[in-house]
Amino acid sequence: MFSLSKLRRFATALVVTCVFFVLHGSPMYAQATLPVMPLPAHVVQGAGSLSLHGGLQVVFEGYTEPRLERARDRFVATLSRETGILPVPPQPVNQSKLIIKTAGPSAPVQQLGEDESYRLEITPTQAVLNAANPLGILRGLQTFLQLAKISPNGFVVPAITIDDQPRFPWRGLMLDSGRHFMPVDVVRQTLDGMEAVKMNVFHWHLSEDQGFRIESKTFPLLQEKGSDGLFYTQEQVREIIDYARDRGIRVIPEFDMPGHATAWFVGYPNIASGNGPYQIEREFGIFDPAMDPTRESTYEFLDRFIEEMTALFPDAYFHIGGDECNGKEWDRNPRIQQFMREHGLKDDAALQAYFTGRVQKLVAKRGKITVGWDEVLQPDTPKDVVIQSWRGQKSLAQAAERGNRGILSTGYYIDLNQPASQHYAVDPLEGATAKLTADQQKNILGGEATMWSEYTTPENVGGRIWPRTAAIAERLWSPQETKDVDSMYRRLGVVSEDLAQRGMLYRTTSELMIERMVGDEDPSSLKVLASVVEPPKGYSREELTKYYSYTPLNHLVDAVPSESDQARQFRGIADRIAGGTATENDRRQARQWLTLWRDNDALLQPLLPHSALTAELAPLSRNLSQAAAIGLSALDSLEKRESVSAATRGDQLASLKKLGAPQATLIDGIVPGVETLVRATKR
Amino acid sequence: MFSLSKLRRFATALVVTCVFFVLHGSPMYAQATLPVMPLPAHVVQGAGSLSLHGGLQVVFEGYTEPRLERARDRFVATLSRETGILPVPPQPVNQSKLIIKTAGPSAPVQQLGEDESYRLEITPTQAVLNAANPLGILRGLQTFLQLAKISPNGFVVPAITIDDQPRFPWRGLMLDSGRHFMPVDVVRQTLDGMEAVKMNVFHWHLSEDQGFRIESKTFPLLQEKGSDGLFYTQEQVREIIDYARDRGIRVIPEFDMPGHATAWFVGYPNIASGNGPYQIEREFGIFDPAMDPTRESTYEFLDRFIEEMTALFPDAYFHIGGDECNGKEWDRNPRIQQFMREHGLKDDAALQAYFTGRVQKLVAKRGKITVGWDEVLQPDTPKDVVIQSWRGQKSLAQAAERGNRGILSTGYYIDLNQPASQHYAVDPLEGATAKLTADQQKNILGGEATMWSEYTTPENVGGRIWPRTAAIAERLWSPQETKDVDSMYRRLGVVSEDLAQRGMLYRTTSELMIERMVGDEDPSSLKVLASVVEPPKGYSREELTKYYSYTPLNHLVDAVPSESDQARQFRGIADRIAGGTATENDRRQARQWLTLWRDNDALLQPLLPHSALTAELAPLSRNLSQAAAIGLSALDSLEKRESVSAATRGDQLASLKKLGAPQATLIDGIVPGVETLVRATKR
Repeated sequence: MFSLSKLRRFATALVVTCVFFVLHGSPMYAQATLPVMPLPAHVVQGAGSLSLHGGLQVVFEGYTEPRLERARDRFVATLSRETGILPVPPQPVNQSKLIIKTAGPSAPVQQLGEDESYRLEITPTQAVLNAANPLGILRGLQTFLQLAKISPNGFVVPAITIDDQPRFPWRGLMLDSGRHFMPVDVVRQTLDGMEAVKMNVFHWHLSEDQGFRIESKTFPLLQEKGSDGLFYTQEQVREIIDYARDRGIRVIPEFDMPGHATAWFVGYPNIASGNGPYQIEREFGIFDPAMDPTRESTYEFLDRFIEEMTALFPDAYFHIGGDECNGKEWDRNPRIQQFMREHGLKDDAALQAYFTGRVQKLVAKRGKITVGWDEVLQPDTPKDVVIQSWRGQKSLAQAAERGNRGILSTGYYIDLNQPASQHYAVDPLEGATAKLTADQQKNILGGEATMWSEYTTPENVGGRIWPRTAAIAERLWSPQETKDVDSMYRRLGVVSEDLAQRGMLYRTTSELMIERMVGDEDPSSLKVLASVVEPPKGYSREELTKYYSYTPLNHLVDAVPSESDQARQFRGIADRIAGGTATENDRRQARQWLTLWRDNDALLQPLLPHSALTAELAPLSRNLSQAAAIGLSALDSLEKRESVSAATRGDQLASLKKLGAPQATLIDGIVPGVETLVRATKR
Repeated sequence: MFSLSKLRRFATALVVTCVFFVLHGSPMYAQATLPVMPLPAHVVQGAGSLSLHGGLQVVFEGYTEPRLERARDRFVATLSRETGILPVPPQPVNQSKLIIKTAGPSAPVQQLGEDESYRLEITPTQAVLNAANPLGILRGLQTFLQLAKISPNGFVVPAITIDDQPRFPWRGLMLDSGRHFMPVDVVRQTLDGMEAVKMNVFHWHLSEDQGFRIESKTFPLLQEKGSDGLFYTQEQVREIIDYARDRGIRVIPEFDMPGHATAWFVGYPNIASGNGPYQIEREFGIFDPAMDPTRESTYEFLDRFIEEMTALFPDAYFHIGGDECNGKEWDRNPRIQQFMREHGLKDDAALQAYFTGRVQKLVAKRGKITVGWDEVLQPDTPKDVVIQSWRGQKSLAQAAERGNRGILSTGYYIDLNQPASQHYAVDPLEGATAKLTADQQKNILGGEATMWSEYTTPENVGGRIWPRTAAIAERLWSPQETKDVDSMYRRLGVVSEDLAQRGMLYRTTSELMIERMVGDEDPSSLKVLASVVEPPKGYSREELTKYYSYTPLNHLVDAVPSESDQARQFRGIADRIAGGTATENDRRQARQWLTLWRDNDALLQPLLPHSALTAELAPLSRNLSQAAAIGLSALDSLEKRESVSAATRGDQLASLKKLGAPQATLIDGIVPGVETLVRATKR
């Protein structure tokens, strides 16, 4: 796949055996305990460790370039943050040494499928990092940083030999800067996190109904009228592209068309299909405005726009969106209807296919390859168009069969607040794609997590992306057999701590948002509640409350992580209790937590009316208390081996069903675990 | 004092009555509950509040300038952080309004004693902020931000009328960038905090034995050989000066001479009194190297250096240090000894006075006023030299009597890890200065907190400065009668939360440093220990362990705040229990905490050997447990009204004395409270 032959050549020169040995079937040491995410392809543990106590000297051998020097400086600064060992001045004791050997340069513009493999060999006397090019070095440095740990002998990295390379060449994250603008520092932090987990494509969703977010010098009314003043200057964009390249990350812009484009039309109504005037959209959903595919002037506009943007973004790929155009403006416009009849375009899908074909040619004219969402795949879509699937592996398989390459996003929608395990279980090569031939499977390039921003602001977006996206990064990097969910969660905790040590402060932000809700009151009891509730999953939030793009996202649902660690751990304990495998510690923990949750309501209720942001939480807090009380009752019965009548159990389960319903757009994460306990009372 | 007459003129035009009414004797509402720090000079509470729920429109009337517009943008962004209310796009509902009325500009370069007064009038319909110039507006905006709070009706500011002005015109913070370099982002955050608590002088200690920290174009070897590459470029310095000016803060550089100057001599040994060569100093203390006051070439060097630096720093004041020159290099140099005899300089102090006199003329030649530490005050010191006292009010009184102005730093040494209450109790006008005539007292300009950096790095300096410096800021701003320590601590907690909401993350950093110590282990029990221990006070730390400038400051002593909130609260409870004024809640809290502390050792000990950073904590943790056990025993006796024998009590107090001794360079904050409980068992 992709650079396998290049990798093989390089690896042969360096590695004696086993480079492509994958973890499946290997000793479980690495999978179970190595604090690295994504897990490397191949690990051999050594004896002893390399001390970092006196500092670490980083030396280049062979090829080098300014990007590598910056990578070293960043590495040294990060290592200093993770250890508190000051990087300067030179220590009087002997420093350990990391030798970086780079065979040669990577491509001037980072390419799909470039070699990212590396070999990291750490012994008690030194560390050597080998790679064919700077990309492999970047990946290996992140592995080294994750390996650095405190020990009885101070900070060390364990003796180990790692041969590593990614499974998929496209490991992306899409950030929606359209619905809520994400300032450049948020983008930078996102790229920092991506580098840490070896992701390599930043897909930047730059235009939406709610905002056009990039400066166009050719068509300045795009940002002047379509952004509320919230857009990236071209200078900032160039800085972000450089910043990403320093981290081995490609930047692919997306300009969504013909739908999801209302913000374009505020300044340029003539490229739309309706009569205008248009306003920036303040609600969320699918809206009627769409570009007019029937007028040549639309393509003249897009030609010049694409000329400008393809010059700004050096990547070979260019995303034109294409999703969710409802065609209603087309249906209402007699001129467009006439055009469709004249050109034999039988429906809106055909008209969109015509549009996509025209735009794809404009992109190709600038030497770029078009990427689009599922909808752009039509019978005569050119073979080089890459399909990003939000509908599932089936779309990808269809595309791959006819020769189009594709990337999976179905299952990686991190805005839907699903657990990391759910994303982790999704594989680009399963279901329909698993049935493809090996050659066809090569068309599956990888996947992308998508961070849509209806319910996310710059403040809390970090906590929506991280740490769950690290699980997706592992799915796309590590061998397919890497599937141990317990190991994943254990390492996800380590990664989250590591990201915090590096200055990614989403956990702190969550705490500060909770503290802000109670003002000068003691937030402890609110934090107890917060630790076990979760935002609703999937698209249910929008059904619970009406949101506008300016609605403050400062409620508890906005502050808590997508997934409650404590609720998840409680479910695990409940499963073990029900399954008869619980330890004494499990039972003690369950009782302690259930007691805490039951009693918290009495402490929290008096505070809630003091703040408009907490008043709505009264039923949620009460429900948590009641669910915990049911849990304690079930736990008592189980421990005393008392029988519980079917009627009582039925009542309890019925109560839990009510108690688990969303309140204040939040769901109670402990109800499933309590249900497990109640069900277990049936003997 | 200072701008009183200007203020009076301005105030008369705006304010009907009571502008100079101070809080002493006024209803205690404001002092006790107003969440503002420093407390304003005069407050009248209104009825109701102004809603911020729909956003706040900020409107200028009268004079404006780009600095005010930037202040407004910063204010809007901070208010958004503090509330989560998105600043854009315009809300569809009616926004509340803040009208900013500025009478005119301030001086082009901010001057000592410029008018900083403001009037803030908030009603349920609008807020009006009035000031003579932008400085007053900056101060008033901070008061507004502190007033914004969550309520049952959403975020509001209370209806209130505040007339406010500072007590002293010089309210400074000195940052030592010499011993440990402090990067520009640390400087910026420091200035952010200063703005929040209305401080107005940033004193930048830029040269030390351990480093020369600013780019000189005239003498580039200063930074090239004297800084380990850690210095500010002139471009960065200009940016910091602008950043400070935007926040109403003057920037005064200090170049310490003739002592504390080893780093200068690495590049320029000829200005020193010894033979050289010199190395950057890696230890801390007072060292022999000193400038040679006897050679004209020294003054030629300094003339050109001062020319360069006075051109870079626009402030009218220029600090030449002058502290702690031990004269040993002078004593050892026959040529210098001969010079002293020839010029009738009877001792090293006389030689330093000669040097200071020469340097002061070089500073005056560039139109600047010299500031120096106590030692620069000599019989013929010119009257315009400002004395910064590290020795106490007596030095200041002496200076003031002879006509020199002075600022107090004694008692404001925040590097010594003393409690906020201790700094809060120190007043520039008490002791010797209280006995001065009113005219002489005008020579006391204010004070400066000093953040020396022997035991502080960029990582933890925020937690050394904040929140305690806010207590000093209040001492220097608020009426002298503002002295309620309980109110101060209550509001210090509010300020600390507010600074966190603004993105000053010293509390988070403290947590991360603690988590880093245990690696992937659960840090909970270490946090329990951390929450009640404190760094040693004063200069005792250097006696406990040997430190070099490269010694990692990543131990528990470096992570914990200077003052333990929990230990302080426990002492308060113990005092109330001993004094018979404890509530039921006090007693319950004391028992809960003492139990937690007693039992924590069993949880923590097994972890400690796993990490080189925690292994040293075993005795500290054990001692906490034992002290808590003694406390519980005393509490039992008190609650059961049992008599305790004098012998038992004597044994307990003797044990506590041992348990309270420093361990791992940390002191146990609960021992004094436990001692109080034990003593109370004597009936």
